Amino acid sequence: MRGNMKAYQEMSREELQTLRELLTAEYEDAKKKGLKLDMSRGKPAVAQLDMGNDFLDALNTDSPLKAQDGVDVRNYGDMDGIPEAKKLMGDIMGVPAENVVVCGNASLTIMYDTVSRSVTHGVLGSTPWCKLDKVKFLCPAPGYDRHFAITQHFGIEMITVPMTPQGPDMDMVEKLTAEDDSIKGIWCVPKYSNPQGYTYSEETVRRFANLKPAAQDFRIYWDNAYAVHDLYEDRRDELAEILSLCAEAGNPDMVYEFCSTSKISYAGSGISAVAASKANLDEIRKSMKIQTIGHDKVNQLRHVRYFRDINGIREHMKKHAAWMRPKFDAVLKVLDEELSGLGIGEWTRPNGGYFISFEAMDGCAKAIVAKCKEAGMVLTGAGATYPYGEDPKDSNIRIAPSFPTPEEMTKAAALFVLCVKLVSVEKLLEEKK
Amino acid sequence: MRGNMKAYQEMSREELQTLRELLTAEYEDAKKKGLKLDMSRGKPAVAQLDMGNDFLDALNTDSPLKAQDGVDVRNYGDMDGIPEAKKLMGDIMGVPAENVVVCGNASLTIMYDTVSRSVTHGVLGSTPWCKLDKVKFLCPAPGYDRHFAITQHFGIEMITVPMTPQGPDMDMVEKLTAEDDSIKGIWCVPKYSNPQGYTYSEETVRRFANLKPAAQDFRIYWDNAYAVHDLYEDRRDELAEILSLCAEAGNPDMVYEFCSTSKISYAGSGISAVAASKANLDEIRKSMKIQTIGHDKVNQLRHVRYFRDINGIREHMKKHAAWMRPKFDAVLKVLDEELSGLGIGEWTRPNGGYFISFEAMDGCAKAIVAKCKEAGMVLTGAGATYPYGEDPKDSNIRIAPSFPTPEEMTKAAALFVLCVKLVSVEKLLEEKK
Repeated sequence: MRGNMKAYQEMSREELQTLRELLTAEYEDAKKKGLKLDMSRGKPAVAQLDMGNDFLDALNTDSPLKAQDGVDVRNYGDMDGIPEAKKLMGDIMGVPAENVVVCGNASLTIMYDTVSRSVTHGVLGSTPWCKLDKVKFLCPAPGYDRHFAITQHFGIEMITVPMTPQGPDMDMVEKLTAEDDSIKGIWCVPKYSNPQGYTYSEETVRRFANLKPAAQDFRIYWDNAYAVHDLYEDRRDELAEILSLCAEAGNPDMVYEFCSTSKISYAGSGISAVAASKANLDEIRKSMKIQTIGHDKVNQLRHVRYFRDINGIREHMKKHAAWMRPKFDAVLKVLDEELSGLGIGEWTRPNGGYFISFEAMDGCAKAIVAKCKEAGMVLTGAGATYPYGEDPKDSNIRIAPSFPTPEEMTKAAALFVLCVKLVSVEKLLEEKK
Repeated sequence: MRGNMKAYQEMSREELQTLRELLTAEYEDAKKKGLKLDMSRGKPAVAQLDMGNDFLDALNTDSPLKAQDGVDVRNYGDMDGIPEAKKLMGDIMGVPAENVVVCGNASLTIMYDTVSRSVTHGVLGSTPWCKLDKVKFLCPAPGYDRHFAITQHFGIEMITVPMTPQGPDMDMVEKLTAEDDSIKGIWCVPKYSNPQGYTYSEETVRRFANLKPAAQDFRIYWDNAYAVHDLYEDRRDELAEILSLCAEAGNPDMVYEFCSTSKISYAGSGISAVAASKANLDEIRKSMKIQTIGHDKVNQLRHVRYFRDINGIREHMKKHAAWMRPKFDAVLKVLDEELSGLGIGEWTRPNGGYFISFEAMDGCAKAIVAKCKEAGMVLTGAGATYPYGEDPKDSNIRIAPSFPTPEEMTKAAALFVLCVKLVSVEKLLEEKK
């Protein structure tokens, strides 16, 4: 199909029928190849993990095991994190160590626990959400399915806010939060957003910091998951630092920022952190004291010993980028070559993060994902990037290139564009009936 | 004072006054020594931790990093634990691996999360506790302060149940749970109980398994924290296995069992587990899927590689016992020599665990703890072993010998008995006024 630049919409019924036959034959061949590819999640590749295996040597029998403040990391103490880990995680987020609490192996857990605590205990003295008739969250979409799963789990009503390349539609965010005091939060992946790879503009971040929410217990859930996950050395996005902007705007308590090393060291064996105002952190520490005897400080120290500081992290992430870039480039090359000008899809070209977002023709996403699956490639479920798993236009597909090799990725992308074409042709023929 | 065997109660006012002078002088001398001892928590000693430092070598760059089921422990997957870790934790509790979910670094967190989930989502379909007017827990006491802190944190009313050397007063437990459907749980440390070191008798465990609670969502919170923490090779307590007994009794879902390696490997960097029926575990997994991307499997594998199996754990715990025993013996020796026959205190002689429980004369515990503190020794706060931190008789003191060295422990015990004597004499003189 290469080189066919005529937009599908402009084709006659006959042309489309001929095309369908060709594509169907091609698809049947593809199915016979018995592909087995998983691009369902932003899962690190084996090679990427292997690269960091000396991480396990960062602590051994002979290592001094005291934190900077003299606390033995093998024992109880330093419940909210060892000082050097606070500094490291703070540097990743661009905030002072004193605004950081270091937690367990997943920032998702901090987010869940933060919502859970708000449900049972309220937020800095507000009514616990379980005592309210209605609690709502704003959900910029397409977005991260696991965010939406948390709010859904707690019966929180989700309102979709459209995404733009500059971030969420801030007119809508400002209007809704100002009017409705049952809106208690908004989910954000502000840098290299999941799945589009957009980074919120400075204006967007400033507008966030200057929100005037009707609800005193409204919080921005700022999931800075890809803070240091640049793909290219020559072009990288910069994200304005929201904690200081909130403080300047007189809204010091309005934001919780989250980050982790899940996609820096090991997925599932990293460390995570939350950054917030002193008042927010004190409330978090109050619950933590009941919930835990402290998180894994040995692993905190292992991270600090291995990465040393933010420069060590940046050097390490350059190696990551070198692994990730060819996969992104492989997908983009195929998309560009095969779909440009056909009018049946658009895609993002992120400077970092873990995903490429694909917009199919309306009503085609589910069918494309199903076609891919039939031929052996698992994608993130269509709709997953929207609240309740329901993409109103059935058009968004998240592509996660991290796990396959670049060679697999080229094959996967070829299959993907084939399925996009076939489903689009069928859709157009359906419409022309 | 050594050798003075006359019971204080039988002393005349004059004898007591003379004794007070002697003891006061002795106490003033003790204060001058500038002791600095912390026995506030069951904190492992440095030597005990050093003993296991090759633990950090159990995984290194060259280690194969796949679990038995082929899952790469550095990556996402096996959310509820790697198979070999389930087996190891199951063997500690004496239950099959299929009844085990492996979690993060602290069983306390599993307990907190279990209560929290019951508050927000109910238990196997029951009304969420936050929608009920009243929720109550039974609290065998003296007991573990951090259990009571969890229920207090969630506004759950706590009812004290007296402890006996065979376990909680089961007549009371049976009666209350059968009558009152707002009673949703009971906190238990069934083996080497905190702080008394009692192990529930087989009859007690069977009566637990055969409870007929009015509340369908009543659960036994079975915190088997000291399952393998024997102190002596020749005398060790055996605990009946409650999951199978509950199943036999037709109550398969009535119990959650918890354990961790916090006091086997490192405090705070261990792994934890919950054992329960399939129905209970499925409910736990359902929430886990939202709350976490999975726990730290690298640390799970590190534990399995280091300890190998339950026999490896038992061998390791013999080494622990060799460190712990002299401390327990040091305390008991001083208590025996200094307080026997004086009628001013009783203490337990556990076969395992982390604590010795001391019963002072009524109304003396707070004063004794304060006196110790004034002379440089921090004990667990008096009252901490009771719900709401209120010991109705003000008599129980928890002694935690794990952290100091045996030599320090002898000094600490000497100071402790001195304070017990002084406070008791003052109390008796007060009464004779």
